[in-house]
Amino acid sequence: MDGKKLAGEKAAEYVKNGMVVGLGTGSTVYWTIMKLGELVRGGLQIQGVPTSRRTEELATELGIPLLDLAEVDEIDLTIDGADEADADLNLIKGGGGALLREKLVASASRRLLIVADESKWVPALGKFPLPVEVVPFGWELTRRQIGKLDCDPILRMADEAPYVTDNGNYILDCHFGVIQGAERLSAALNQLPGVVENGLFVKMAERIVLGFTDGSVEERLPKSK
Amino acid sequence: MDGKKLAGEKAAEYVKNGMVVGLGTGSTVYWTIMKLGELVRGGLQIQGVPTSRRTEELATELGIPLLDLAEVDEIDLTIDGADEADADLNLIKGGGGALLREKLVASASRRLLIVADESKWVPALGKFPLPVEVVPFGWELTRRQIGKLDCDPILRMADEAPYVTDNGNYILDCHFGVIQGAERLSAALNQLPGVVENGLFVKMAERIVLGFTDGSVEERLPKSK
Repeated sequence: MDGKKLAGEKAAEYVKNGMVVGLGTGSTVYWTIMKLGELVRGGLQIQGVPTSRRTEELATELGIPLLDLAEVDEIDLTIDGADEADADLNLIKGGGGALLREKLVASASRRLLIVADESKWVPALGKFPLPVEVVPFGWELTRRQIGKLDCDPILRMADEAPYVTDNGNYILDCHFGVIQGAERLSAALNQLPGVVENGLFVKMAERIVLGFTDGSVEERLPKSK
Repeated sequence: MDGKKLAGEKAAEYVKNGMVVGLGTGSTVYWTIMKLGELVRGGLQIQGVPTSRRTEELATELGIPLLDLAEVDEIDLTIDGADEADADLNLIKGGGGALLREKLVASASRRLLIVADESKWVPALGKFPLPVEVVPFGWELTRRQIGKLDCDPILRMADEAPYVTDNGNYILDCHFGVIQGAERLSAALNQLPGVVENGLFVKMAERIVLGFTDGSVEERLPKSK
């Protein structure tokens, strides 16, 4: 069984009539959006706020009405994926390069629901390199300063040139190995001039829907709450 | 007497042979750079790191050798202006729109020396609106979130369109009135998704050279150090 499909479709049950819904990006939340399209065709009335162009296109195809972030005051519920999640539901996101938009939408949401297959559930964050979005000007200096936080930052490339985000910035993929104290690390990174945002989502998720290859689905809440 | 000229020229005395020197931007540090040009013509050997195109052009005209930020590992001394400075030498900067580059250069410097005329010395920061550089995408949302920190953010304009920084971002000028706890506020701002950097320079300056209209110059160290 496909754990991503199981988790993604299950999460759609949290979407109720009249909600403004943040729509994440990725191969698991894809199934949520597909399911929401089906429900909308069946009469569900929602407005979506996409976190990427890809999601915007998919939702439009499926007939899900969309709102621009500029028009939104508060989002009732956002459903999004993650690259890693730990027992406190702290997350690493941004493997796909959209971490800033995803964090903006999540921060404007009253509730953040994460969908993932079992491979994303980890005892400690940090095996997946943490994406950090940085301003191109002086990025070598920013890289050195991030490196002092005990990691090895690698400039993300697209073919021969640096990968450029939707906001015109670069991504440094930072190999920490194990991240102790995600909240402190996130704050330390954001204090560095040149750092626009980082892929740590700390104390933001309220629930994770995990799909397993054996066909089961589990929902978990933050351990330390 | 011109307090700016007095302070700016005095600060040039701190520049010694062989130094890598961060060169700020503005009408006071202008006089420092003019003086350094004179000293370089007289045989002083330094390398400058400019914080703006304007400073780069001025230094080039004056024959001051320049380094690119990418080539710099550490800057010995940076001399820059400020829009406001308090007794702890916490600063508001960025009225000119170059706060990110100025902060990058300052953070790469072992020592930061501020030059200003007496009008910039204030009992409490915040009368001058705090510039906050934000990502254009979703800036209205970012503005609302900054507003929750008890201020009134105004989008900086250039004629009919938003002012755009060298990094392709917008500036929100945030009217706080009085800023209590500059360090906490700076951290809170930088934690907001969409905020690239803010104009608070906390615990960065080691000394300020103040010029007075009566022709005197005073040097002050941080009160709480």
